[in-house]
Amino acid sequence: MGADHARILASQVPGAEIAALYDADPVRAGAIADEIGRGGVTGSPLELIAHPGVDAVLVASPDSTHKDLTLACIAAGKPVLCEKPLAQSSAECAQVVAAETKFGSRLVQVGYMRRFDPACAEMKAKLLSGRLGNALMLHCIHRNVSAPAWFDSGMAITNSAVHEFDLARWILETELTAVQVFRPKAAANAPGSPVFVVIETAKGQLVNVEIFNDAAYGYDVRSELVCEKGTVSLRMPGRTETNADGMQGLDYPADWRPRFADAYRLQAQAWIKAVSSGGAAGATAWDGYAAAAVAEAGLRSLTGEGCAAVSLPQKSAIYE
Amino acid sequence: MGADHARILASQVPGAEIAALYDADPVRAGAIADEIGRGGVTGSPLELIAHPGVDAVLVASPDSTHKDLTLACIAAGKPVLCEKPLAQSSAECAQVVAAETKFGSRLVQVGYMRRFDPACAEMKAKLLSGRLGNALMLHCIHRNVSAPAWFDSGMAITNSAVHEFDLARWILETELTAVQVFRPKAAANAPGSPVFVVIETAKGQLVNVEIFNDAAYGYDVRSELVCEKGTVSLRMPGRTETNADGMQGLDYPADWRPRFADAYRLQAQAWIKAVSSGGAAGATAWDGYAAAAVAEAGLRSLTGEGCAAVSLPQKSAIYE
Amino acid sequence: MGADHARILASQVPGAEIAALYDADPVRAGAIADEIGRGGVTGSPLELIAHPGVDAVLVASPDSTHKDLTLACIAAGKPVLCEKPLAQSSAECAQVVAAETKFGSRLVQVGYMRRFDPACAEMKAKLLSGRLGNALMLHCIHRNVSAPAWFDSGMAITNSAVHEFDLARWILETELTAVQVFRPKAAANAPGSPVFVVIETAKGQLVNVEIFNDAAYGYDVRSELVCEKGTVSLRMPGRTETNADGMQGLDYPADWRPRFADAYRLQAQAWIKAVSSGGAAGATAWDGYAAAAVAEAGLRSLTGEGCAAVSLPQKSAIYE
Amino acid sequence: MGADHARILASQVPGAEIAALYDADPVRAGAIADEIGRGGVTGSPLELIAHPGVDAVLVASPDSTHKDLTLACIAAGKPVLCEKPLAQSSAECAQVVAAETKFGSRLVQVGYMRRFDPACAEMKAKLLSGRLGNALMLHCIHRNVSAPAWFDSGMAITNSAVHEFDLARWILETELTAVQVFRPKAAANAPGSPVFVVIETAKGQLVNVEIFNDAAYGYDVRSELVCEKGTVSLRMPGRTETNADGMQGLDYPADWRPRFADAYRLQAQAWIKAVSSGGAAGATAWDGYAAAAVAEAGLRSLTGEGCAAVSLPQKSAIYE
Repeated sequence: MGADHARILASQVPGAEIAALYDADPVRAGAIADEIGRGGVTGSPLELIAHPGVDAVLVASPDSTHKDLTLACIAAGKPVLCEKPLAQSSAECAQVVAAETKFGSRLVQVGYMRRFDPACAEMKAKLLSGRLGNALMLHCIHRNVSAPAWFDSGMAITNSAVHEFDLARWILETELTAVQVFRPKAAANAPGSPVFVVIETAKGQLVNVEIFNDAAYGYDVRSELVCEKGTVSLRMPGRTETNADGMQGLDYPADWRPRFADAYRLQAQAWIKAVSSGGAAGATAWDGYAAAAVAEAGLRSLTGEGCAAVSLPQKSAIYE
Repeated sequence: MGADHARILASQVPGAEIAALYDADPVRAGAIADEIGRGGVTGSPLELIAHPGVDAVLVASPDSTHKDLTLACIAAGKPVLCEKPLAQSSAECAQVVAAETKFGSRLVQVGYMRRFDPACAEMKAKLLSGRLGNALMLHCIHRNVSAPAWFDSGMAITNSAVHEFDLARWILETELTAVQVFRPKAAANAPGSPVFVVIETAKGQLVNVEIFNDAAYGYDVRSELVCEKGTVSLRMPGRTETNADGMQGLDYPADWRPRFADAYRLQAQAWIKAVSSGGAAGATAWDGYAAAAVAEAGLRSLTGEGCAAVSLPQKSAIYE
Repeated sequence: MGADHARILASQVPGAEIAALYDADPVRAGAIADEIGRGGVTGSPLELIAHPGVDAVLVASPDSTHKDLTLACIAAGKPVLCEKPLAQSSAECAQVVAAETKFGSRLVQVGYMRRFDPACAEMKAKLLSGRLGNALMLHCIHRNVSAPAWFDSGMAITNSAVHEFDLARWILETELTAVQVFRPKAAANAPGSPVFVVIETAKGQLVNVEIFNDAAYGYDVRSELVCEKGTVSLRMPGRTETNADGMQGLDYPADWRPRFADAYRLQAQAWIKAVSSGGAAGATAWDGYAAAAVAEAGLRSLTGEGCAAVSLPQKSAIYE
Repeated sequence: MGADHARILASQVPGAEIAALYDADPVRAGAIADEIGRGGVTGSPLELIAHPGVDAVLVASPDSTHKDLTLACIAAGKPVLCEKPLAQSSAECAQVVAAETKFGSRLVQVGYMRRFDPACAEMKAKLLSGRLGNALMLHCIHRNVSAPAWFDSGMAITNSAVHEFDLARWILETELTAVQVFRPKAAANAPGSPVFVVIETAKGQLVNVEIFNDAAYGYDVRSELVCEKGTVSLRMPGRTETNADGMQGLDYPADWRPRFADAYRLQAQAWIKAVSSGGAAGATAWDGYAAAAVAEAGLRSLTGEGCAAVSLPQKSAIYE
């Protein structure tokens, strides 16, 4: 992901200059630096954050390092775009929220890139237009071709479904208050998948999410927002239709990169634009915290709690 | 519905002759008899069932009369196609099952017409082909334009969702064992809708059904069957695409008649063919019983039971 | 085709009784008679037409016999549904028109079944609604999986494109006045295909037709009617969508039978209904004549005439 | 268009710096310079081309100035991206080709942006994959919502259809050799539209193009490439599907900007990348010349020549 982000910044985002790079594997870091033709390689992530030529930091390191690196950025007073998840637990996310609140204004953007997906944005715009009335339900599907053997049902919630948790909060502009996880019959040789999650929002709406990380046929992300007077759905995003072999076919991508290429580009552009003008864009540390809290309720439901409540503290004023 | 069925039999089903008609409103009965140009009007439904010129009976009377008329047909040894629901409760359905079991062979066909819908049949055929692997989930959506004010959440389960209960049992070839009903935020002026139902099957599969009887925009019935290696979905059934007013549009029907016209025709043809050869087709009294038992579990869940178990007795050999 | 029609009449059309059958192969005739369980086999087609138990005749014999059998039906004063083409040339069609005109009222229906296809009928209804304004163009595509080696470009016009000629005349309610045929590069091993036909109507509209009888991938018939304020298209008619192997696919049928099953059924029902009430339905002998005249202009264009004019005599009053 | 291009370069293309701007209206030039926050306004286009801080020039001025400005860029040895058309006639285009040939290597890129449209590129990639066999036909449709009253049939060919001429040459990798233009019945109040163009390629393939600049319903560009074993089509590009008011709808854009936003962005990125490395991208001056020659044949056909041949001189080696 780090290399992807570096390439996007270098090739798609005017105004961004890659001043320094760090990767645990210095050979890989050097290769990327060479490829994009800019930026030196630093000896540690903290060195990079401290680097005087670095105005803002993009964190795409292993999940376990997200919190500490983000806290270091806040300590340095530097804007940071942190890949999701913001931290390994809601308690850790709360540390980031507390640090940023103490700092007094937003520095943190969490990489929930779907907020920048043109189709998701169009869905939200159609809701906001008022033509369809109030939102009542949001049906979501999130399928991958295959997952590693160690990717279990818990990770399906903490690593995959969090995208839908954030999307639902963003589209519906409300918090998610209760989560119930169902485990359908598993696919052969894929014991961790699928899971089906039913969620209640603070407005009483119902959100449901199918996560199926071994869906085999393609990378497929869908949502339908059901409102009082109509519905709006993400459309399957194929560009060409092929007639061959008895079928009219639309191609699925093999993973999220082609599907969300626009979202990653627009997220990076929005981040750089916001950083340049001292502002902030996209998902906040609070959003990262809330998604983590919902995921934790999901884990409690998965391990026997039935319908698990999500409890959130008061939101800091800097996130309003 | 009675008039619809009479017209279908008269205009679409060779081999069917309408020998007699009954309607609580004799004027209406006479009008239909005149329209289709065949069949006399009898003074009571029991008189019709007893009529020596009547070989088989189609019951499309008010729901509260289904059980008694079906029992009368069994008592007369005459095949009967009874509109769904078979009876007002699973206990009443059990009476029909018991009477038919005592008779010793199938006489009863329940009007779960989706089994004859070419798209539903194609979905099942694709599962049976084996190409997609085992079925894991079935997502269903069932939307009507609007429902009367007295059509509450309970009726959404007992009268609407029963179609999906039967479809799931038929596609997946298993029983439904537990039901949990969720009530999302209701549409303004439509306090009874929508409901969202999550069901477990005896094979461990997950079925979910959105019932939204005040969906406003059109009559829309969808299903996606999720299997290990792929999925199959009912396609939105518009025949022409219209480009006008800034949009490419597909028309929804206003109700179920256009959507399931083929299913009603094929159901009637299959019934007449089965009756002619002494056989039976489509959903059995047992299927009607099972759908009612699932609906009753749904009602218990709706009124506070959480996840409600469905318990079924041993199935009579005549239904194997 | 004869067996198909016999099965449709027997299984889908109340009011039709197959009183007699003829096939050049008496074994095949007997097999069909046995299968549908009705009707004797006659020794010749003329014997069948003369049979006192035969009220109306369906001609699905080899093309070369259509004209003489249809003339025999007219001579006998019996209604006849003749498969397209009505005759081998426009001159022969004119003989049928003359005979029927002399008889004084319609007896002949030509099997241009697309007029009964629900999608084609919906296209016409949308034009007639007036919402789209006047029709300006009609784009048509007509593809088969493969054609026999002897099926040359001329036959693509006389046997395939005639369906579009009739459709265009019926949708646009006008005559076709000039035809120009283009021969694109041929597919390897399919020297006769494809052809592309551009047609002018008496109203100045443009119709174009791609005929590609070796299109390999499936049976695919499409039309888009372009009007002043919008367009209406036949939709690809798949019933289910399958996600598998990296693709979302809709199945094409292998030939016209599944695509036009509804059209054949509705055509047969309309014919029997019309015959029963002494009326007539569908394409007339005049329509058969006009389609043949357009095809002949197409052949002249194909063999060097450039843009070939279609000239038609005065239409008999029985066709107004 | 000039302002659009400036915004794209400034907001989407790393490596591009807008050093100077010129617009015949200095107020507008100043407004754009202020908006994008970079670049001074020069007093004339020639002054801009001569400006020592200008490495490469984007020409989006009125069509009548394209040739002279492009020639001035070549004289200055500076790369130029010239909006289509390259010049007002094929003879003028030939001057550019001659000047560039004399220069000895490519400096000119013509703004046929569809070559950078991801859907068009996918269509070409599917042809090149070989899976579909050889290309036989290309069907194109190009519709705008409305055109000014002075936009006549000739302009439909020279200004609209040239996009399809270039697309066909690029996809099929061959020259277009003959053109025939048809004028269907015109829409009321839109006397210049539509036109229908049938084209032959040097490989014997058939290309046809409907141009309808008063199509009313939306901006709609389509193509289907028909090959020996299958076809590939551009898919209607809506991102969300809306169910409302009895319909499932996909939105059309009002003009080409949303439809080809990706193409303009990718074209600008490819141009800057090519310029940076001394190379060249996209459509050449020769391509601009060839499109103009085809358009002129189209005009001759429109004014009575029937099928008009396209004659092209020998292509300079710098375009191989």
